[in-house]
Amino acid sequence: MSSQPTRQLHLNAFIYPAGHHEAAWRHPLTQPERVFDADYYQQIAKTAEAAKFDGIFFADGPALRSEARYNAAGRLEPIALLSSVAAATDRIGLIATASTTYYEPYNLARLFSTLDFLSQGRAGWNIVTTSSEAAAENFGLPAHPDPSIRYERAREFVDATVRLWDSWEDDAVVLDRDAGLYADTDKIHRAEFVGKHLQVRGPFNAPRSPQGHPVLVQAGASNDGRAFAAQYAEAIFTAHQTLDHAQAFYADIRSRAKALGRNPDHVKILPGISPFIADTERGARELEQEFNELTVPAYGLFQLRGITQVDLSEIDLDASVPEDIFGDAGDVTDNKRSRKQVVAGIVAREKPTVRQLLHRLAGARGHRVVAGTPEQIADTIEEWFTSGAADGFNVMPPYYPGGLEVFTDTVVPLLRERGIFRTEYTGTTLREHLGLPRPASQFAGDRVGSHAS
Amino acid sequence: MSSQPTRQLHLNAFIYPAGHHEAAWRHPLTQPERVFDADYYQQIAKTAEAAKFDGIFFADGPALRSEARYNAAGRLEPIALLSSVAAATDRIGLIATASTTYYEPYNLARLFSTLDFLSQGRAGWNIVTTSSEAAAENFGLPAHPDPSIRYERAREFVDATVRLWDSWEDDAVVLDRDAGLYADTDKIHRAEFVGKHLQVRGPFNAPRSPQGHPVLVQAGASNDGRAFAAQYAEAIFTAHQTLDHAQAFYADIRSRAKALGRNPDHVKILPGISPFIADTERGARELEQEFNELTVPAYGLFQLRGITQVDLSEIDLDASVPEDIFGDAGDVTDNKRSRKQVVAGIVAREKPTVRQLLHRLAGARGHRVVAGTPEQIADTIEEWFTSGAADGFNVMPPYYPGGLEVFTDTVVPLLRERGIFRTEYTGTTLREHLGLPRPASQFAGDRVGSHAS
Repeated sequence: MSSQPTRQLHLNAFIYPAGHHEAAWRHPLTQPERVFDADYYQQIAKTAEAAKFDGIFFADGPALRSEARYNAAGRLEPIALLSSVAAATDRIGLIATASTTYYEPYNLARLFSTLDFLSQGRAGWNIVTTSSEAAAENFGLPAHPDPSIRYERAREFVDATVRLWDSWEDDAVVLDRDAGLYADTDKIHRAEFVGKHLQVRGPFNAPRSPQGHPVLVQAGASNDGRAFAAQYAEAIFTAHQTLDHAQAFYADIRSRAKALGRNPDHVKILPGISPFIADTERGARELEQEFNELTVPAYGLFQLRGITQVDLSEIDLDASVPEDIFGDAGDVTDNKRSRKQVVAGIVAREKPTVRQLLHRLAGARGHRVVAGTPEQIADTIEEWFTSGAADGFNVMPPYYPGGLEVFTDTVVPLLRERGIFRTEYTGTTLREHLGLPRPASQFAGDRVGSHAS
Repeated sequence: MSSQPTRQLHLNAFIYPAGHHEAAWRHPLTQPERVFDADYYQQIAKTAEAAKFDGIFFADGPALRSEARYNAAGRLEPIALLSSVAAATDRIGLIATASTTYYEPYNLARLFSTLDFLSQGRAGWNIVTTSSEAAAENFGLPAHPDPSIRYERAREFVDATVRLWDSWEDDAVVLDRDAGLYADTDKIHRAEFVGKHLQVRGPFNAPRSPQGHPVLVQAGASNDGRAFAAQYAEAIFTAHQTLDHAQAFYADIRSRAKALGRNPDHVKILPGISPFIADTERGARELEQEFNELTVPAYGLFQLRGITQVDLSEIDLDASVPEDIFGDAGDVTDNKRSRKQVVAGIVAREKPTVRQLLHRLAGARGHRVVAGTPEQIADTIEEWFTSGAADGFNVMPPYYPGGLEVFTDTVVPLLRERGIFRTEYTGTTLREHLGLPRPASQFAGDRVGSHAS
């Protein structure tokens, strides 16, 4: 699909209302008054598209997830939002997060299929099980299910959803006006999914979408999350602070995928990177410091408690964080500890004060923050890309829209000079941008299965 | 909100993939190969907007609802689709159907709120309880719930959803950068809805949308449907074959609304009308006949069975429909019979053969089909509008896109000459087009209620 000679980076713009830094909305470089306007996101998407990024990406969750007193906490529903962005763009991939714990497969399959049609093959689904406990009560559940239950349902959910997306074979629509035959109903199948948590009969109520189905994306780093990703994910968004952790994760996922009989090259691994960029390293650090000084400690402590279930509010802000308060920073990846471990790792390596730790996390909620010149940013991207740590990056600008623009204006040209990032799109769909195959319908050629009434 | 002197008509374009006539996709005037393309719907919306229509409208249901062998049966999810249309238009209202039986309030509230933001105040929700029995098995339910249960849940669903939409008061977002105060959390309330079918805690995860909340639309004609509409609906889409039935419905709804303490002028009643238009009445009838001759009897019988639960397939197509086979055509409006009654009424009045009945229903599934010159179409619209039968019409072109274009090109100018339809928009939101007030948040001024964490 690509005529380019060497392996190419993949770049997504991870969009966060005013920017990924938690105090972004307070900084004069941002436009928080626009975060509920379609044209704000269309503008950002056009910037990413002009730079030939693979896609843009939105996180999501069905609850008010952080303290609205101190941050632009509200958010638009990302599938509808990306449907609007689709109308304003031609090539950029459009990836929305949606929860398998708090949706129904038939409804979600329709939303993503529609986005794939509206964008002519640019949709991606970031599959999450939702970490916010507050979501449960928005759906009448007595409690947020345990991670193992959430992943069990997630597997059923994705299986059922893909069956729905596959239920019309690619050539089911005949459109023979003279014969009065619209579709060959032998090629429209019921999903007939029966699981422990979900039952979905189908058939789906739309033909197969341009990409066969939207690209499946995942972000879990726990053992359950890795197992899930290795089986289902075509792209993985991941958080690593250090090269060796990223390399270990990269190798682990590829070996798991291979063990499951998948081609590991069809699982693109994209760590997050949140870059502060200036002409000098000192200027970049000063910019980061400007943002950090705008943080509100009460908010940072609230966020930290949400990530780690550990409350540091009784400790003086300028005292050291007690070692081991977040537990072991080792390699264990049980369900409840993957995000906490990132924090434990920072504490073990850097021995910060509480305030320093809050600043460290303010940038991108545990993702890697780097401050430097365009050369330095390009260097670290190239290093991770060429040393078995990444197939590309989920770029998380600390502030929008300018933080993306400085990246596309100054870092992207360097990546091109080094021959590792495209100068033009070579395909039209997100699958083509990512070098992923278009999946065949699992019902293709199956003429025995039950079909539409 | 309007400076126009006389009462003005409201017009919606009810969009159906290739057109409302069931054989539309076979006719050379249609473009069935485009019915999954965003630009097809954007083009139709622009036609309606150029004619200053109030809105466009999509039906929906979470199941493959008719025999795909004989009709363009698949459909895009309408909220995502309208989000794409929003990006290509500026003023036209955007009304999507969604089911209270097969959605969760938190998810649906987010989709519609987002559409309202993306369109800067043009969203409407056509509230349905879903009539297709096939939907249940797509959601793991043992059976489609009875209408009375569906309406009971619908009431809870709308109450919960409006509480979510109201949960941020209009002035909750403070955006004080200097003080680091994004929102006044005393003005963000939990929904705290506890019903028999649904529990939703909230708060919602977005501010109040431009219209306060999307316009609430409803289409039920049964007793439960009328009671629901009188309480909740701000616009009603309804199906009537005759003026006297439409007048009776109009009077009934207004008196029910008044009895509930509502201003009946804030319930706009819009019957469906499916017009075949030509320079001569004979030409219009010939055009209708062209479409009718493209119908497939097996499909018509299938559809009729779906509407009435009566199977006529054993009767000769050219034999008369047995009188009373559909029961009483009288005024009773129990839950299961409202659609069947429209059919019974046609049989009682017109004494058709089976084929004639199928042709009669082929136009718009029981909605009123008229064939005539632009003058004749304008005459019947004006007559219904001025004789207490309608506040406007849900225009259902038998074929798209041309069937809407001929209406806007030839009928709309006549309505303007008669002074009953706008020449320019006087507002920017769907509420303003319809002359509906912007509702206050039910929490406004409530400083005692629980608020966001």
